[in-house]
Amino acid sequence: MSRTFLKHNPTTSGEDKRTPVALIIGAGAGTGQAVAVKFASERYHVVVVRRGKGPNRLLTDADDSQNKLMKFAQEIKDRGGEATALFADGTKVEETVALVKKIEGEIGPIAFINYNIGAQVGNRTLEKTSYRIFELAWRMGSLGAFAIAKEAAPYMIQRGGGTIVYTSSTSAYRGNPGQHAHTAAMGGRRNLCQSLSAELNPQGIHIVHVNLDGLVRAPETAFKLMARGNQEGFQKFVDDRLSTENILEPSSIADTYFHLHMQPKGTWTQDLDLRPWKTNAWWMSK
Amino acid sequence: MSRTFLKHNPTTSGEDKRTPVALIIGAGAGTGQAVAVKFASERYHVVVVRRGKGPNRLLTDADDSQNKLMKFAQEIKDRGGEATALFADGTKVEETVALVKKIEGEIGPIAFINYNIGAQVGNRTLEKTSYRIFELAWRMGSLGAFAIAKEAAPYMIQRGGGTIVYTSSTSAYRGNPGQHAHTAAMGGRRNLCQSLSAELNPQGIHIVHVNLDGLVRAPETAFKLMARGNQEGFQKFVDDRLSTENILEPSSIADTYFHLHMQPKGTWTQDLDLRPWKTNAWWMSK
Amino acid sequence: MSRTFLKHNPTTSGEDKRTPVALIIGAGAGTGQAVAVKFASERYHVVVVRRGKGPNRLLTDADDSQNKLMKFAQEIKDRGGEATALFADGTKVEETVALVKKIEGEIGPIAFINYNIGAQVGNRTLEKTSYRIFELAWRMGSLGAFAIAKEAAPYMIQRGGGTIVYTSSTSAYRGNPGQHAHTAAMGGRRNLCQSLSAELNPQGIHIVHVNLDGLVRAPETAFKLMARGNQEGFQKFVDDRLSTENILEPSSIADTYFHLHMQPKGTWTQDLDLRPWKTNAWWMSK
Amino acid sequence: MSRTFLKHNPTTSGEDKRTPVALIIGAGAGTGQAVAVKFASERYHVVVVRRGKGPNRLLTDADDSQNKLMKFAQEIKDRGGEATALFADGTKVEETVALVKKIEGEIGPIAFINYNIGAQVGNRTLEKTSYRIFELAWRMGSLGAFAIAKEAAPYMIQRGGGTIVYTSSTSAYRGNPGQHAHTAAMGGRRNLCQSLSAELNPQGIHIVHVNLDGLVRAPETAFKLMARGNQEGFQKFVDDRLSTENILEPSSIADTYFHLHMQPKGTWTQDLDLRPWKTNAWWMSK
Repeated sequence: MSRTFLKHNPTTSGEDKRTPVALIIGAGAGTGQAVAVKFASERYHVVVVRRGKGPNRLLTDADDSQNKLMKFAQEIKDRGGEATALFADGTKVEETVALVKKIEGEIGPIAFINYNIGAQVGNRTLEKTSYRIFELAWRMGSLGAFAIAKEAAPYMIQRGGGTIVYTSSTSAYRGNPGQHAHTAAMGGRRNLCQSLSAELNPQGIHIVHVNLDGLVRAPETAFKLMARGNQEGFQKFVDDRLSTENILEPSSIADTYFHLHMQPKGTWTQDLDLRPWKTNAWWMSK
Repeated sequence: MSRTFLKHNPTTSGEDKRTPVALIIGAGAGTGQAVAVKFASERYHVVVVRRGKGPNRLLTDADDSQNKLMKFAQEIKDRGGEATALFADGTKVEETVALVKKIEGEIGPIAFINYNIGAQVGNRTLEKTSYRIFELAWRMGSLGAFAIAKEAAPYMIQRGGGTIVYTSSTSAYRGNPGQHAHTAAMGGRRNLCQSLSAELNPQGIHIVHVNLDGLVRAPETAFKLMARGNQEGFQKFVDDRLSTENILEPSSIADTYFHLHMQPKGTWTQDLDLRPWKTNAWWMSK
Repeated sequence: MSRTFLKHNPTTSGEDKRTPVALIIGAGAGTGQAVAVKFASERYHVVVVRRGKGPNRLLTDADDSQNKLMKFAQEIKDRGGEATALFADGTKVEETVALVKKIEGEIGPIAFINYNIGAQVGNRTLEKTSYRIFELAWRMGSLGAFAIAKEAAPYMIQRGGGTIVYTSSTSAYRGNPGQHAHTAAMGGRRNLCQSLSAELNPQGIHIVHVNLDGLVRAPETAFKLMARGNQEGFQKFVDDRLSTENILEPSSIADTYFHLHMQPKGTWTQDLDLRPWKTNAWWMSK
Repeated sequence: MSRTFLKHNPTTSGEDKRTPVALIIGAGAGTGQAVAVKFASERYHVVVVRRGKGPNRLLTDADDSQNKLMKFAQEIKDRGGEATALFADGTKVEETVALVKKIEGEIGPIAFINYNIGAQVGNRTLEKTSYRIFELAWRMGSLGAFAIAKEAAPYMIQRGGGTIVYTSSTSAYRGNPGQHAHTAAMGGRRNLCQSLSAELNPQGIHIVHVNLDGLVRAPETAFKLMARGNQEGFQKFVDDRLSTENILEPSSIADTYFHLHMQPKGTWTQDLDLRPWKTNAWWMSK
């Protein structure tokens, strides 16, 4: 992050003179924070949200994730941007309810949301997919995605506009072996984006489902791959990808998210894929 | 139901000499019971399952559904078939666990399952789709579908064979307005069927996802339509459909389910649609 | 082929007292001839069609394919069935026009059609995919499929019934590398089946698109694989497949085609897949 | 068109110092010319192509389309842009071959292509869909789309980069009644885009398939609707759409095309939809 954020003021709607908010739920070090940087540079007040302390089951850096997020928000402010770090679990309805209420009441009008919580719980056989895991994936993949729309939509409808971009994956399109919990949750997310579009588009809310069909350059993606036992060859793997640009670059994902947010009402995208040039599409036999 | 069931004995596997079981979860008066009749006529022991008494939120006939189901099982027995009526809620994991254990232990080896629980909770705006409803639909559409596979698969794998047919709907393919809870749940079901196939097919278990893309001739379908306020014109509507055969006939659905169960291992169908000849396909603009 | 064909007479419609015809276009030694055997055993007059002599570009056995097909038809007759071998190129409109006219005029009313011509022209880079090849694939994949429907539909509509089953493949669902001509042609076939269904279903004609997602046990499939240079290991490959039933068995494909033809008007399938139990679905990452 | 084109010089590759070319095949007054304006404003040399005189079967303004296109190119030049109008039929292979050769040899290196020829031939029953019409739609929908990729790819591969955006429609995703020729042709286009991506992406060529799922504000779209007999109510219809922004705005489509062209190699979109906010998605039951 080097340049200062000085471009323009995004349009606010109606009486509310506060800076419009770009809310990123699941503001990890990859896509989420890149989206935050982009929207901050476009002079949105970015609200970056992660889970706080507690039973943080899938991340190793749980203990210091709060410190990291606050430091990230401070960096944006140091460069002249507006940012707030908040801690809430987007898979718990009551925390989403409180989160939206707090932002709208205390920070600013939510103009853009990126729901960036994945539902990948690792490859597991049917036997090893516990009911707890199946429900957890549903909370991340479907329920949280539903909750943020349900809570934020009334405010957006009142103002006649807003965008919700759902980061998604190929599991939303088809089920692979070992992916029972993940694919059930993400298949739900994809269809939900369609029913949300059907109801909310005519009320001015733009819903987008983005299929990230490739490796994202993000520490947590790395973690997940390592967790599957690929640690030794992993660095070489990432280096190969980087040297050939065969990796989804978070800042480029963010540029596309911003383009989607800027599309005028007559010309909205609802579903698209993003894939590195040398990466096979999910439907390709290998 | 007029003819007696006398055709042949379905093959049993291994040591177990008991009559193979065809388990129908969601044995309502339409598809579920037609499937039961078909499999009874093919000399399976049919186990028909519905929820028992209690907070039966979506059915008006909750009070006497138990009597009806027991009467239905008795009719099959009167005609020389084998049948057992059981009461369990397929959307509650612990009841599915107990159900499978009871059947395998006390009745016979489960050779065929029809998961016939839909997740239609009526047209509801985002505002009117409560979190309770969203979860209920998930339990019917995804969790119950997952639970029956998880509980029954180990028995089927041990015997090297079995079929699970999931009755499904167009909401599994795309989301329409007012269908947030339904489409999220059924989209999950569809993808789950693919991940289940990927893991279980090579172990001899045949998974099928059937899209019933049209009105089924069943009292409960009727109820649902009426509940949406179409009561007066409803009888005429059904009569029109019947007189033109423009309705999914449960016994024909059952014939296709049996054909799918009979497909040899080299030639399995995983996904198909069933639609009346005069009914527009879901993707058709009107 | 051992048993004699003695089952029942298929219903004929209206005044026409001739035996109903099952027409198989592309009656190769795999699927096509198995479908013919099945329909002959159900007492249809089977008309098996292949291209005759001439520039038979993709088959090595062109010279004696006529002898083989006549011998095949004779075998059916020897067993008490009705069969006629005809030679026509289903990818040439004028030959399809003449073919339908001849059968309806001289043989019998066409009740069932299996369009069994694939459009596989081998893996070719864009550079190596000539315009001639691209057009040839279109003729096999799309134009011939359109022509048989266009020519046969008026007769079927007049009689109020008929079935056209299109044998298809995964290339109809997505495009893989090296498959430019094939996937463009088959993608066209799949969508055409939907528009045909939309218009012809309400007139009593059942259209089905069948995705054979796996290796078919057929000499010509074998030929194609060998032609790609796998000759030495090929026999072992087929033996492995056969020993594990991991191959699409033509007679089982034919059983499903007959089931589809028998579905009553209220309960029609338009699209389904057939896949060996140990074969990965096309969407599965490997 | 009011502002002058002064932004920046697009990067050229290698030795070729000429201005990069944006080639628009099917440069009608709607999408095609808006794309040309956008790329001219980004300092590309735009080459706008339409069919010339002759048997121009589907357009009423055939006689003066050449004058109009030359005037359009002149307007771009008057504003400081670079533009060339050429006349070629993109559905005829030999003309596409000559077109690409001429541009690369005499004008500049082709960096971007928009294949903007639709295959809509009007609603026609099967009976009224002649073989000539079926082939014509294929030439517009599939063959021309294939030809431009086949001819331009070698140049782009040599330079290591390029983008081809295919304007497409919902007929590429499913077949509706009366759309036999259209849907077969466009289904082919969609799958072809996937096989082209599979081969060309790793060679640096970005292929995009764009589903315009709504009415485009273009005179020719208007013509088509009128041709279906809606003339009287048509002006009111368009006015309603315009007053509510419920119409695809060509300049906004062009903005998204340019964004797609600008996506870096690690983050490419292959398939997306564009739809007005108040327009139902194609899969929505009405």
